[in-house]
Amino acid sequence: MRIFVGARRVDAVPPDDRSLAYGDGLFETMRVHRGDIPWWDAHWARLADGAARLGLALPDAPQARAESQALLAGGDDGVLKLLVTRGSGGRGYAPPDAPTPTWLLSRHPSPAAAPGGLHLHWCETRLAEQPLLAGLKHCNRLEQVLARREAVAAGADEGLMRDIAGDVVSATSANLFVLQGGTWHTPPVDRCGVAGVCRAHLLAALQAREARLAPDDVERADAVFLCNAVRGILAVVGVGARAFAPHPAVDDARRILARLHPAFPTETP
Amino acid sequence: MRIFVGARRVDAVPPDDRSLAYGDGLFETMRVHRGDIPWWDAHWARLADGAARLGLALPDAPQARAESQALLAGGDDGVLKLLVTRGSGGRGYAPPDAPTPTWLLSRHPSPAAAPGGLHLHWCETRLAEQPLLAGLKHCNRLEQVLARREAVAAGADEGLMRDIAGDVVSATSANLFVLQGGTWHTPPVDRCGVAGVCRAHLLAALQAREARLAPDDVERADAVFLCNAVRGILAVVGVGARAFAPHPAVDDARRILARLHPAFPTETP
Repeated sequence: MRIFVGARRVDAVPPDDRSLAYGDGLFETMRVHRGDIPWWDAHWARLADGAARLGLALPDAPQARAESQALLAGGDDGVLKLLVTRGSGGRGYAPPDAPTPTWLLSRHPSPAAAPGGLHLHWCETRLAEQPLLAGLKHCNRLEQVLARREAVAAGADEGLMRDIAGDVVSATSANLFVLQGGTWHTPPVDRCGVAGVCRAHLLAALQAREARLAPDDVERADAVFLCNAVRGILAVVGVGARAFAPHPAVDDARRILARLHPAFPTETP
Repeated sequence: MRIFVGARRVDAVPPDDRSLAYGDGLFETMRVHRGDIPWWDAHWARLADGAARLGLALPDAPQARAESQALLAGGDDGVLKLLVTRGSGGRGYAPPDAPTPTWLLSRHPSPAAAPGGLHLHWCETRLAEQPLLAGLKHCNRLEQVLARREAVAAGADEGLMRDIAGDVVSATSANLFVLQGGTWHTPPVDRCGVAGVCRAHLLAALQAREARLAPDDVERADAVFLCNAVRGILAVVGVGARAFAPHPAVDDARRILARLHPAFPTETP
């Protein structure tokens, strides 16, 4: 773990940090391949978009990249997390006029594979509709915490979340793709949800379409997978009571993804 | 500032804190009067309710009270903030099975009085509807940060927030009371908003009623005030384009509040 306030490395996060107080920050979790971060540019672009929308200052981009590479020296695979907060602030919601960002880099092991495919639970916790925050990977994540707790309690691998209107949005930490009539569909993230970096790559590469999906649409689909930038494509073998058999279109999608990011396996792991 | 992990005082917040990462925490801001916290029990009750709903562990109550009093030794007036997080956690939303709370106590000066009354801005930032979090003083506060920024940019003292449906809920850091037909009304906080400790005291003491309010209801009211547990009752002299003259019912409310908490002045400051 390396912690910075502006350009300066520090030993600890200042206790008046605004992400600690208000979740006033953004984060990225990135898959590392042989000491490199193939999708760095896409992650940084999403971070910059979030910073612009929230009015946060970003760390110096070359420094952030260099420190990331330094932390990954050794060349292993794994996961890099970058958390950027609005920095220190006084009591009260008003952001400081000229904030200095606090940022944290941490390295984590690659997640375990899910060779048997995932069983998904329909979470009762809904995603609230907030267009001003939709798409961002911000640090207000209590809904995901509550939903994930539900999925764990149900003995499922992940949980599917609906919005207040009842439309399906995503899993707690992954986007959702469903195969309908030979075309992959994924829910829009304009009212809530996260605009995943892997989702964006797959939308283009699979010629997928954004579509609002009801729970029935998911359960009646020909195939379902989850995806994120850390784990790639995760086959789904069950959604609630519905079982899904292996489908060649998921293998096709995995092969296409493997060409876009060398850390993700071509074959079902 | 004093920082604790469980019962143990520490020098810094662990960098893997879940409120830093996800806003996975709760807080209370309390008005201090001559070294005492008259509403401690009400604040602790709300904190305990929030902890139960989110599944957070609380600090030991006698220790938290004793440490608060120790921090306030000297007998001045001011503000005490208590922030309780779910504590350290790994990467990912799933809460740890047996979390140890991290908690921070900080002392702040009493806020400046607002002798002329407040001018309020109608914020464009809406409060999303999330019944599972409504009422709680949790650490997912990006909506309030964005709304407060709007109010500052508009040159207003505070901002009024509506929910997605258009109903008025509260200011960014205070509850709202409006006088209609001789009765005080305040919006419910069942879909969003914070169940303020001062609000609860005033609901009972003023025989006020909860009612959903449209923006027109606020602008056509006979009188309007904001309240919170740090500043007490704050008279409002303008909402958008509508000006409000001083109203004796606000002075009556302030006298009633002064009997409930000795730090709040009887007279308009």
